[in-house]
Amino acid sequence: MKQETAPSKRTRVKRMPERGIYDAEVIHDILDEALMVHVGFGVDGKVSVIPTLHWRIGHRLFIHGSAASRMIRILSGGAEACLTVSLLDGLVLARSAFHHSVNYRSVVCYARAIPVEDPEEKKRCLGAMMEKLFPGRQDLARAPNEQELKATAVLAFDLGEASAKIRTGPPVDDEVDLNLPIWAGVIPLTQRVGTFLPDPLSSRDLAEPILGPAFVPGQQNQD
Amino acid sequence: MKQETAPSKRTRVKRMPERGIYDAEVIHDILDEALMVHVGFGVDGKVSVIPTLHWRIGHRLFIHGSAASRMIRILSGGAEACLTVSLLDGLVLARSAFHHSVNYRSVVCYARAIPVEDPEEKKRCLGAMMEKLFPGRQDLARAPNEQELKATAVLAFDLGEASAKIRTGPPVDDEVDLNLPIWAGVIPLTQRVGTFLPDPLSSRDLAEPILGPAFVPGQQNQD
Repeated sequence: MKQETAPSKRTRVKRMPERGIYDAEVIHDILDEALMVHVGFGVDGKVSVIPTLHWRIGHRLFIHGSAASRMIRILSGGAEACLTVSLLDGLVLARSAFHHSVNYRSVVCYARAIPVEDPEEKKRCLGAMMEKLFPGRQDLARAPNEQELKATAVLAFDLGEASAKIRTGPPVDDEVDLNLPIWAGVIPLTQRVGTFLPDPLSSRDLAEPILGPAFVPGQQNQD
Repeated sequence: MKQETAPSKRTRVKRMPERGIYDAEVIHDILDEALMVHVGFGVDGKVSVIPTLHWRIGHRLFIHGSAASRMIRILSGGAEACLTVSLLDGLVLARSAFHHSVNYRSVVCYARAIPVEDPEEKKRCLGAMMEKLFPGRQDLARAPNEQELKATAVLAFDLGEASAKIRTGPPVDDEVDLNLPIWAGVIPLTQRVGTFLPDPLSSRDLAEPILGPAFVPGQQNQD
């Protein structure tokens, strides 16, 4: 069943409305492929934007952090957040300086944090982050103890007020410029996974981690 | 001469203060390598975070956009912005779930926009963005006409209240966990430039653009 996130006044894309998308599946795919979210919040009229890892369970976005961090305390206190995720897919080179652009997929979500308090639920949520990155690894890693769990805050954000914005494809030049003798097209950008660097303190050969669904196939380039 | 950006109460890094850096050269290097900034701003107590391209001239950060865009109008009107740039350099895998981390370089800057109004200065500023991405290309591209320049807003932000935060190196595990039979180390992440895709409307073989200093050598992988 196709889930739609009805655009609110704020999430309705105003500039370039043809780029605005409210389809939950599209929003989920962008969130699942991106590793980092930029979290904006205000305190006493002052805005801060902090990058952090994110993951998704159902129609909710999650972040975690030290329970002592300023951002976690402010968001747990009920301040509304703006959570923005962006994937820069390419640079779009037009024949005119003006029509240069970028190909991207982004999600903007407005929501108040729902702190995950129950230790068992917290563990399950953190486990979902590990699965996104390294499937199966949570069964191997030493699980968090009571103190570590207490020190780690997990915040959920409902995606009800989220929208995606996407640009794809070649440049759109003015017709009069099409024959100018300058290269035009797209320079694709992706994330590249480099050669794994084992911890110098590891004395044994151990199986390398498996990369999860957040990594697009073919990204890894271990040369 | 080494320039220091004195930390203000807000930019002084509180969590993990050993990761806080106020050296202008470090801040500039991060800004120059990153393509995208996430701009946070508040209106009527509501925070928004919007991604956009950025570039730097001296100790100032620049963005541009449609003069009609909501963000540009709000920032031009004097609202304070928080401009955050982040480079995710790697995933740090510890033996315990709790000590997993990421290697990153980020810059957070608080500033009010200084709109660039003079058309000639605007052209120079936009030219600096082109130089960051594709040196020499601005001499080939069709230059912006009067109307295009008018439709393009350029905003400068002083980097006086900026700080960088950096994590590098292997995981830091509890000593008691060091002999657990699980792979630990760093999985490096970089940006990869893919095969250039010429515009289907291009009928001639034209020299491909040269990638500028924003692209780390060896990033391009045209296979």
